[in-house]
Amino acid sequence: MTLQKPVRSSLVKQIAEQLVQRIESGAWKVGERIPPEPELVEQLGISRNTLREAVQALIHTGMLEARQGDGTYVRSSSEFGAAMQRRLRRSTLLEILEVRYGLEREIARLAAMRRTDADLLQIRQKLDASLSLRHDPQAYITADVAFHIAVAHATHNSVMIDLYEQMTESLRLSVSGTLDFHDLLDQQAITHTALVQAIAEQSPDAAEEAASNLIQASKTALTELIEKGGMDA
Amino acid sequence: MTLQKPVRSSLVKQIAEQLVQRIESGAWKVGERIPPEPELVEQLGISRNTLREAVQALIHTGMLEARQGDGTYVRSSSEFGAAMQRRLRRSTLLEILEVRYGLEREIARLAAMRRTDADLLQIRQKLDASLSLRHDPQAYITADVAFHIAVAHATHNSVMIDLYEQMTESLRLSVSGTLDFHDLLDQQAITHTALVQAIAEQSPDAAEEAASNLIQASKTALTELIEKGGMDA
Repeated sequence: MTLQKPVRSSLVKQIAEQLVQRIESGAWKVGERIPPEPELVEQLGISRNTLREAVQALIHTGMLEARQGDGTYVRSSSEFGAAMQRRLRRSTLLEILEVRYGLEREIARLAAMRRTDADLLQIRQKLDASLSLRHDPQAYITADVAFHIAVAHATHNSVMIDLYEQMTESLRLSVSGTLDFHDLLDQQAITHTALVQAIAEQSPDAAEEAASNLIQASKTALTELIEKGGMDA
Repeated sequence: MTLQKPVRSSLVKQIAEQLVQRIESGAWKVGERIPPEPELVEQLGISRNTLREAVQALIHTGMLEARQGDGTYVRSSSEFGAAMQRRLRRSTLLEILEVRYGLEREIARLAAMRRTDADLLQIRQKLDASLSLRHDPQAYITADVAFHIAVAHATHNSVMIDLYEQMTESLRLSVSGTLDFHDLLDQQAITHTALVQAIAEQSPDAAEEAASNLIQASKTALTELIEKGGMDA
């Protein structure tokens, strides 16, 4: 028994990795229910206990979710994303913002240095979409997030993109629906346009300066919001 | 059966969280073997299967490790740290460096704004330690990491500290033993001293400039190293 356990453990590990693979590849999509236990047991040729231990591992990391009396659902498509979101739930809005600011300036520099024509086209489309949605705060936030993520993709640095997406997702969840846009929007139209211009001209210094101005404006707006009691720091 | 499974699932979840708690609190330390299965089953008043599913979940996240024919050992004291290290293993050195550079400048600014006298004392002690170890590359790297982490702690931003520590740990593992220090060391002594001076004077702009110089010097050294074929990008 003592000798067999680690062997079984490594089988569970392999099965867990296979399940992760199915989710990360998109074969099992977020929000969908995974196939029932007997079906997976037969498909994978393993015991029910082995399958359950593997499923439990993914529930623990936040990729799967067991719903009472229903079944097991896909909750997150990325193990790293789930771990980041768990960590960020234990942090304050200000902590996340400060990290995002650090990444934002480096992203602006790298995007200006490395953007392809296809990247620039994407960035411009997302900017235009956000500018056209200024009358609708909820839709604007979503479009604004898409714009920033398009800029991040132009860095061609996968760690930077992953981290920035996670920070942004976490901020979107807390900011969404609380921000008053009246002062912020005109300013953002100017700073965003300046950032895209610098990226188009492949000028890292100008891109970083635009990112700094953008950060400064959103810092001011959020500080005012926190002072007004509209949001917890 | 269909109705009971989710209930059991949520018990496994609770047990997994209790095990995480024991590790994060330091009751079970990294490198130590956890108590044998029968002891834990009795202590926690649960079935062997429930315990195994919970243990498997922690093996999957990288906090525990099953060793063939031996037992289960604590591998990482932080779930977030383990997830980050798994993600960073799939990235290039350059990707990690670029993210670290982004954080580094923000850390310098925030450390200058927020450092307490106790923080400053720690930072100065770590700098002195690293300067006195310049004859011993391995010891110098360890002392240098400790210096940078002391600066990160002066930001009092727990997300920034966690991310920076993980980036730095990952870099230390790849850089360790390959760097040629001859050119880098004198430069680092100057830039590190300038950074500490700016933090002491609570000047965010000067701190950021020192961080930029420091980054520039290490970028140049690493690019040369990669070009010489001493390290993979």
